[in-house]
Amino acid sequence: MNTPTPAVFTAEYWNIPQLDKSQLPAIERHIDTKTKPLGALGQLETLAQQLCLIQGYNSGNYQHIEIKQPTIMIFAADHGIAKNGVSIAPSEVTGQMVANFLAGGAAINCFCDSLDVQIKVVDAGMLFPVENPHPILINQRIAAGTADLSIESAMTLAQAEQCLLMGEQAAKQQLATGTNVLGFGEMGIGNTSAASALLSVLTGLSAQHTTGVGTGITAQQLDKKIQLISLAQKRVQEKYPDENLDPGTVLMEVGGFEIAQIVGAMLATASAGKTILVDGFIVSVAALIATRIAPNTQQFMIFAHCSAENAHQLLLKELQANPLLDLGLRLGEGTGAALAVPLLKVAANFYNNMATFDSAQVRV
Amino acid sequence: MNTPTPAVFTAEYWNIPQLDKSQLPAIERHIDTKTKPLGALGQLETLAQQLCLIQGYNSGNYQHIEIKQPTIMIFAADHGIAKNGVSIAPSEVTGQMVANFLAGGAAINCFCDSLDVQIKVVDAGMLFPVENPHPILINQRIAAGTADLSIESAMTLAQAEQCLLMGEQAAKQQLATGTNVLGFGEMGIGNTSAASALLSVLTGLSAQHTTGVGTGITAQQLDKKIQLISLAQKRVQEKYPDENLDPGTVLMEVGGFEIAQIVGAMLATASAGKTILVDGFIVSVAALIATRIAPNTQQFMIFAHCSAENAHQLLLKELQANPLLDLGLRLGEGTGAALAVPLLKVAANFYNNMATFDSAQVRV
Repeated sequence: MNTPTPAVFTAEYWNIPQLDKSQLPAIERHIDTKTKPLGALGQLETLAQQLCLIQGYNSGNYQHIEIKQPTIMIFAADHGIAKNGVSIAPSEVTGQMVANFLAGGAAINCFCDSLDVQIKVVDAGMLFPVENPHPILINQRIAAGTADLSIESAMTLAQAEQCLLMGEQAAKQQLATGTNVLGFGEMGIGNTSAASALLSVLTGLSAQHTTGVGTGITAQQLDKKIQLISLAQKRVQEKYPDENLDPGTVLMEVGGFEIAQIVGAMLATASAGKTILVDGFIVSVAALIATRIAPNTQQFMIFAHCSAENAHQLLLKELQANPLLDLGLRLGEGTGAALAVPLLKVAANFYNNMATFDSAQVRV
Repeated sequence: MNTPTPAVFTAEYWNIPQLDKSQLPAIERHIDTKTKPLGALGQLETLAQQLCLIQGYNSGNYQHIEIKQPTIMIFAADHGIAKNGVSIAPSEVTGQMVANFLAGGAAINCFCDSLDVQIKVVDAGMLFPVENPHPILINQRIAAGTADLSIESAMTLAQAEQCLLMGEQAAKQQLATGTNVLGFGEMGIGNTSAASALLSVLTGLSAQHTTGVGTGITAQQLDKKIQLISLAQKRVQEKYPDENLDPGTVLMEVGGFEIAQIVGAMLATASAGKTILVDGFIVSVAALIATRIAPNTQQFMIFAHCSAENAHQLLLKELQANPLLDLGLRLGEGTGAALAVPLLKVAANFYNNMATFDSAQVRV
């Protein structure tokens, strides 16, 4: 069990900057000169502050925020645990939904179309590859789905390492096109099970607390799901009785290819000094893992929404995150992340362009 | 006290249709064919249902939702009660902020610019008229501010009637340009006081419950504000000891010109079968009054956000409304209503264009 930790699971590898918080008072003063009562724009003010800290770190310019080509990257993969019937649909639906993304017919397509957000779809390891190339598809398959995490390691450590590297590569390629806000979504039948198992193993919370109905399973399926995740947690505890598990081992034992690739893509986004938009429960678990690898990553994360999945609320609390939206969504695909994009645009616009009391000659 | 009620304060005048709820199961089925788990889009699904019921009533087509030229109409006026120093700024700021709206420098301008939403500004009775005409300004001044509602009727019944008629006219003109979603905002130093007084008189709630810090007054100012609103409530109770007050009398006694014009504009929007976007506390008080005049109006109302003002939460409860956003805004101007527009667009887009399980060959 004493395999050396691959470099990608260390903060050193990612070299994520500490933002210059000493700029915060000046940013707040900038906001407070605007023609509005102090603090009257609520969470949009804290959002503008965060965007400004991130972008100012890169450019040195703390007077201006730009939202450039916001993009949702949907990572898709399959899960061995799905064969136990703990999802509303069989594993084949992962590939069918990816085909739907490529054809422009899914919810995330409609959302991104309305909100002027770009989409990329990443095959991180579905059961079956997509047959034909497609302009928005990135093929970086690790394998045809993970092993069943309830009874064995979901993947090898080399695969977990590969996931982070591939996620890094996809994020870097997208950022190189000029995108400075990268949102993450996922598709993978069985991936709330992986996310719950990850959360249990990472936090010690029991499966009862970390497991929910996902996109809508029956009470009987939920019992089964809790049982399998408890088994996974027990298996991992017995395998590593005295160890404080590192994120690489946790991903290897109970992760998913799409979740692990998202971890790498988030770390790469933060490493490049760009903004990360976090979607719902599954993507938030990836966010938790990224912060365990490199705590500075969280400074670059905007939590878009609170999912209807109970465990998401636990997790947001663990991360001390205050999400922007709470619309009862429980779909994934990055739909919540996409809905936050207009709020980022509005925050940037008021920060950049709103008149000051002086410029508008408003005398309070 | 037995003045006959002017027609504009009766449901008959407005003739607001009852939507055809028998279409709801078909609308729900339409949503349930889409490639997503049942109910997975949460509040966006109920939003799509409501938009569809409204638009289908007009067109007979329950298969398609269109969001056409969404517009925020900001009604501005001054308030006699402001001279008691219960606001963060003097009454002159109403006119200064309207000048800011016309120059494009306010928060609502930045929001609407980012979100592709139109703006109209209505002078419903500011202390001083705007000197020069402006393409987005509508001049329908009732008078140079109301009287001090803490000691006397804020306006005459004829003025309250005139407000509803002028509001109707402004809404009709905007709808005639093709707009089918009309959001309402307000600007008026002292208008949270009028809104709190209206809420107290309409619901019997004490001033302690209906009064808050508005955009940010001191504890001392808040005490004074509560005291003045209690005085107003007492004054009205003593003047009409045995009467169940009609909305016209309530507006006359403790209303504001902008609030009353919004009531008329909302009723006219519902009467034309179009969608109403309700902003924060003050606009929600206007919404309450509109529903008291014609209960059917509420079917056409989408509650955009929950303001940081405590009384807004009471009021939303009274209206059994479940707002879309909760971002801690306390600015007014229609900023919350504007932020809901992308959610309407997304709801329409998924309803119209999302693939079905059949069309996408997804087999769950």
